Amino acid sequence: MPIITLLTDFGTQDHYVAAMKGIILGLNPHATLVDLSHDIPPQDIMAGAFVLAGAAPYFPPGTIHLAVVDPGVGSARRALAARSRGQYWVGPDNGLFSLAWGSQADDLAMVSLTEPAYFRPSVSDTFHGRDLFAPVAAHLSLGVALAQFGPGVSDPTPLPFPEPEFGPARASGQVIFVDRFGNLVTNLKASALLIWLGGQVPRLRLASLRLNQICHTYAEAPPQTMLALLGSHGYLEIACAQGSAARRLRVGPGAVIEVEKTEL
Amino acid sequence: MPIITLLTDFGTQDHYVAAMKGIILGLNPHATLVDLSHDIPPQDIMAGAFVLAGAAPYFPPGTIHLAVVDPGVGSARRALAARSRGQYWVGPDNGLFSLAWGSQADDLAMVSLTEPAYFRPSVSDTFHGRDLFAPVAAHLSLGVALAQFGPGVSDPTPLPFPEPEFGPARASGQVIFVDRFGNLVTNLKASALLIWLGGQVPRLRLASLRLNQICHTYAEAPPQTMLALLGSHGYLEIACAQGSAARRLRVGPGAVIEVEKTEL
Amino acid sequence: MPIITLLTDFGTQDHYVAAMKGIILGLNPHATLVDLSHDIPPQDIMAGAFVLAGAAPYFPPGTIHLAVVDPGVGSARRALAARSRGQYWVGPDNGLFSLAWGSQADDLAMVSLTEPAYFRPSVSDTFHGRDLFAPVAAHLSLGVALAQFGPGVSDPTPLPFPEPEFGPARASGQVIFVDRFGNLVTNLKASALLIWLGGQVPRLRLASLRLNQICHTYAEAPPQTMLALLGSHGYLEIACAQGSAARRLRVGPGAVIEVEKTEL
Repeated sequence: MPIITLLTDFGTQDHYVAAMKGIILGLNPHATLVDLSHDIPPQDIMAGAFVLAGAAPYFPPGTIHLAVVDPGVGSARRALAARSRGQYWVGPDNGLFSLAWGSQADDLAMVSLTEPAYFRPSVSDTFHGRDLFAPVAAHLSLGVALAQFGPGVSDPTPLPFPEPEFGPARASGQVIFVDRFGNLVTNLKASALLIWLGGQVPRLRLASLRLNQICHTYAEAPPQTMLALLGSHGYLEIACAQGSAARRLRVGPGAVIEVEKTEL
Repeated sequence: MPIITLLTDFGTQDHYVAAMKGIILGLNPHATLVDLSHDIPPQDIMAGAFVLAGAAPYFPPGTIHLAVVDPGVGSARRALAARSRGQYWVGPDNGLFSLAWGSQADDLAMVSLTEPAYFRPSVSDTFHGRDLFAPVAAHLSLGVALAQFGPGVSDPTPLPFPEPEFGPARASGQVIFVDRFGNLVTNLKASALLIWLGGQVPRLRLASLRLNQICHTYAEAPPQTMLALLGSHGYLEIACAQGSAARRLRVGPGAVIEVEKTEL
Repeated sequence: MPIITLLTDFGTQDHYVAAMKGIILGLNPHATLVDLSHDIPPQDIMAGAFVLAGAAPYFPPGTIHLAVVDPGVGSARRALAARSRGQYWVGPDNGLFSLAWGSQADDLAMVSLTEPAYFRPSVSDTFHGRDLFAPVAAHLSLGVALAQFGPGVSDPTPLPFPEPEFGPARASGQVIFVDRFGNLVTNLKASALLIWLGGQVPRLRLASLRLNQICHTYAEAPPQTMLALLGSHGYLEIACAQGSAARRLRVGPGAVIEVEKTEL
């Protein structure tokens, strides 16, 4: 019972996701389908990459991740299937998988999808999710080898991920994602931030907000107060206990966050 | 592992859909449940019919489609189970299945659901999805023959689908559906439109929009520009590349679209 | 094929729910996962309790209900697993299960989750759904006995459910839940209300609304008119036929409803 996850920006109102599932189950009735999310903001590759990277590590080896956030559908952008980190990945070559694969590309095997025998008989210009990526994922789940789908390639299109800056006394990053609770997730990786702080106390600044500590849990702060914490996905995030930090501070992706080291 | 799809206007906030799934899995633990959509606008039979027709053809033969958009629940409207196009259909008799079944009704076998042995012991007046349609779909998936559920009928209630008009030099239709991307789907069927055009160039008019060509893909137009294309479901649609045509033109279902033929 | 249902306030936009499903399927690939709802308003334990109580009775015996609406995550609140009404329940000890379990606690067996062998190797302070509750539910589905997860406890934290008042001639309650259709569900239990009325005619008052009867179905009232009925979950509800009572009356949870008995 192979697991195929689905991530798209198609929403759940229309027939698009269901059509993909019908195609998959028609080819492999034994596939276990799991929705990652279909509520990625339309054509927001960064948000899709973030959700995919947040969920994929918790799935077992061999899981096939089918992801379609694809503003370039119908253009010359490549279609990919890959194996990385013990799992499989199918979707457009536009950076969507970058965060999930991470920087160690040494375990990456990747092909460009060119073999029409694994597509639907007629491929539309507008819906590769249904006509190309879904049948490829289904054939992968049936045991077709990666090399059957097309020629190997080794230059995945990167995601333009904004890298934080760590200076001697000051670091700066930005909000890259706002979750459903209004938590502001930044690009300051928890591990890198802790090493950089080296035990010193941080002073944080984001819009009108000033904070002098990093908490371990939302429950440390009284209701409706702001806090900084190292979130469940491994990045510094700014939250509002039992409330929405995004609404409180009126900021979203791109807002700058600054951290200063202060002596203990 | 029979597939049962579910389409409703119940949303995903409440317990309604889950109650139906519990009933089905209690009767047939081996059913594979697939959500078509539960975000059909409340009581919008046309939208439900459109999503169902868009998704159903991609499911394998034998799939059971359980669909409940049912403003007449508790009234005298009939409850139906049917076989058409090699698949099964369960829901209210209000036109919801019309687009999926299409005009060729010669392969249609249909019964009125009157046999209470296949319902829940107590049927509420307000929730036939749970008390009547879900158990009937589950029993169908267990192999109960269609004729067991009630007497055959042959006059399904039609959906009031607005037919487009094709004149010698001018055709007119209307927007019948707006998808999650704000694409405006019209009732101008792609195949009929192409035959009518006979290779001549179309001139399109919708609200303030004027277009002189039909594209093959969203990627043909620069970002944020409007385009017309033959969409993945087989109708002419008006879109905005990487944007929302509905928001740009401020129109929705019912808006009139006109097409003129012009010499090459 | 054990059934595990999932109810959270995590929404479907982010990776949170998918991460829980990945953990479960990694431990038990044979689990059948069913979403109850992930659109519980953030940290609204009452709404979560209501949806859970509305759906759970329709699932077969042995079903495991994994529910996480957990404003106290990371604080000293207990984590629970329990057996009640022939089903299993896993989640925070904050009243979330109260309505589903009901008042007859005699069939309740409950443990406090303290055995880390059944958690993920590292448990975050912020995401017990993924690190603690999901693996416990998976291990339960694999047949681990309740007593293995921790010591028995017998004092579940109650939900502050507002009880209605039944006087000799007048009863009063309040709106406790608004569903997706805008139906206003009150805390007046249908069975208790009917006994109290004893065949007499009710006169209802909610905000500007006055009604003199209780209907059996939404179809009894003309479109866009208000009605009272005994809803599918067993409580008195105020609805607007083919419309939204919440939007019409501009009321929500907490709004007071009064019922007077009048002679036949």
